[in-house]
Amino acid sequence: MSSKRNHAQQWLEKYGHGGDVWSAQEMFNISPADLVDYSANINPLGPPPGLADELIRRMPEIARYPDPTSRRLRAKLADKLGVKPEQILVGNGAAECIQLAVDSLRVRRVGIIHPTFSEYEAAARKAGCQIVSTVVGAAQSFLPAASDLLPMLNEIDLLFLGYPNNPTGNLLERPLLFALAEACQQKQVYLAVDEAFLDFLPDAGERSLLPELPRLPHVLLFRSLTKLYAIPGLRLGYVIADARLIDRLRSRQIPWSVNGLAQAAGEWLLDQEAFVRLSQQYIQDARERMAAALSAWPGVTVFPSRVNYLLVHIAGVSAIQLQRRMAERGFLIRNCAMYPGLDEGYIRLAVRKREQNEQMLAHLQAAIGECRMREGESG
Amino acid sequence: MSSKRNHAQQWLEKYGHGGDVWSAQEMFNISPADLVDYSANINPLGPPPGLADELIRRMPEIARYPDPTSRRLRAKLADKLGVKPEQILVGNGAAECIQLAVDSLRVRRVGIIHPTFSEYEAAARKAGCQIVSTVVGAAQSFLPAASDLLPMLNEIDLLFLGYPNNPTGNLLERPLLFALAEACQQKQVYLAVDEAFLDFLPDAGERSLLPELPRLPHVLLFRSLTKLYAIPGLRLGYVIADARLIDRLRSRQIPWSVNGLAQAAGEWLLDQEAFVRLSQQYIQDARERMAAALSAWPGVTVFPSRVNYLLVHIAGVSAIQLQRRMAERGFLIRNCAMYPGLDEGYIRLAVRKREQNEQMLAHLQAAIGECRMREGESG
Repeated sequence: MSSKRNHAQQWLEKYGHGGDVWSAQEMFNISPADLVDYSANINPLGPPPGLADELIRRMPEIARYPDPTSRRLRAKLADKLGVKPEQILVGNGAAECIQLAVDSLRVRRVGIIHPTFSEYEAAARKAGCQIVSTVVGAAQSFLPAASDLLPMLNEIDLLFLGYPNNPTGNLLERPLLFALAEACQQKQVYLAVDEAFLDFLPDAGERSLLPELPRLPHVLLFRSLTKLYAIPGLRLGYVIADARLIDRLRSRQIPWSVNGLAQAAGEWLLDQEAFVRLSQQYIQDARERMAAALSAWPGVTVFPSRVNYLLVHIAGVSAIQLQRRMAERGFLIRNCAMYPGLDEGYIRLAVRKREQNEQMLAHLQAAIGECRMREGESG
Repeated sequence: MSSKRNHAQQWLEKYGHGGDVWSAQEMFNISPADLVDYSANINPLGPPPGLADELIRRMPEIARYPDPTSRRLRAKLADKLGVKPEQILVGNGAAECIQLAVDSLRVRRVGIIHPTFSEYEAAARKAGCQIVSTVVGAAQSFLPAASDLLPMLNEIDLLFLGYPNNPTGNLLERPLLFALAEACQQKQVYLAVDEAFLDFLPDAGERSLLPELPRLPHVLLFRSLTKLYAIPGLRLGYVIADARLIDRLRSRQIPWSVNGLAQAAGEWLLDQEAFVRLSQQYIQDARERMAAALSAWPGVTVFPSRVNYLLVHIAGVSAIQLQRRMAERGFLIRNCAMYPGLDEGYIRLAVRKREQNEQMLAHLQAAIGECRMREGESG
């Protein structure tokens, strides 16, 4: 892990994440406009048509301070989710909600199940927490079992769980999630469930712990509007939990943290239900096509995903080299070598529009061939 | 102080600040569109014409993650300010920059000079700091003297200074500011100079500590683009300091803290120099007219201000009552009773357009008369 950290400056992902077309511009000398971004997990069908018009209509609000507590958006969310507005905190992206949780809940030891979203550990370290981690291997498709999760609860105050997980795209089956939540409740361990990508699943409503929250006051659900609605530039996320927990998170939040256009967008987006259903179906189909194509290539392993990205292992290839070759071909992909538990053969690919995916796959196949030829020569 | 805190829920300013038209709507049952907001200190001439068009042009960027380190905006700021980009951190409003400073610099004891912007103390308390405060009185027009400032430096790790100060609108004379900065440097006390309103002064460039920063590595300058350019809804601020300090602040910042449209706006706004000069002159003139009119009223004291707001004391009137009466007349004013060092006779008025100011003053005069008559009846 520490040797991986030392290489951070060489990576395109030096700020820790995909979607950094600005670093790609510096590294590869390619304008963001000339790169098709497969490194960020954004709904390819979004933003929904009409959002730009709505933002133009609400533009005068930039001259006003935003509502410091996002009252209208919280009321709308509460109505839609069947919770009280006091159970919701809106944040400057889910990233702020995650940071507020570790900052405000007085946790000392934070549990992380690798490979997973790097921001959990980063946020916990910023808050001065000790990290207790475990690594789940490729043999179990990176899906934690009860034996990976439950023993950890004796050593920690808060557990982060990607649900679905990132970069793997899988998620715990409900019985295990429920058992984990019960065990957390019993041991007074906070369970921070990151549902940022859950809305991509057609059966999201049945999978979330949301209906169980009243009897699980140690569970926090993190959600994002940036992925499904494709508004990462606006920043909008929220957390749902017991009203007393939400109060504690809010007490740490900076004033006017959520900008006015993000609030305006959120209010409008929550009505776009047809867009959500269309996106869920489109992405499921596009993902299965991509996975089937990739799986047929020699030396390529595609891990099971339920969302809009695929974790892929490519034998005999260095992800960092493949990323460079793909950038030269106009496609930005996510190098996953820096995730604990993964190695330099791992990449993550977003699921985009079908025609783009076909083009990308053709280039990827060619780039893999080039990398392997190069490796063969030097080896 | 603590008894003041207990009343917070009764105040319109229950979230700590002016400009909260959303709380005003709840409290007075008046739509934000029907209130002229004199409670927020926003440039009445802004946003500059053309900003909305620029944001519409950059709208596609909402679908992309923002640059995590605001490279283009920092390069432009660095060029304009004559510092290195590494000396600048862009934040989600100056509010985030202030919070990052107390969170990241490992300060334990924070100095506050009341009356001043409440966010300094709020940020320090969120970070678990001890507050060391002093109150400067009306007899010296709330302007700190050397004897208010220098002894405090032995007891603190960081001193907040509003320059100009809020809600008073005044600012230290340069010799005292320089002496304070030297003393802070000698005692290894961080000096956090909030220049959020400095750009409203035509001679801002000569007053800032900016040119002295190379020999003052304990000084941080906080700036805001939300006030002068009237974009509080977008959120945009920055801090200038020694590159090593900036690194420490950045290490605490959440990813993608500054949304893409705010960055786009900032890049465009920095070219609007004619707008800035026009605003400085307009506001200076409008402020002097307002101050002259108010000063002529019996029992009214206007404190000297160099910026776009006036601190006003009105004898025999409760600010909270006056605020309600003014809201009924369509004007939102800032009750300043909750500031340590001020009492229930204090209000703050933004300087807006001349015609609006005249209308507001006519209503204010009538409302003061009503309040005094009521007080006389009940007294």
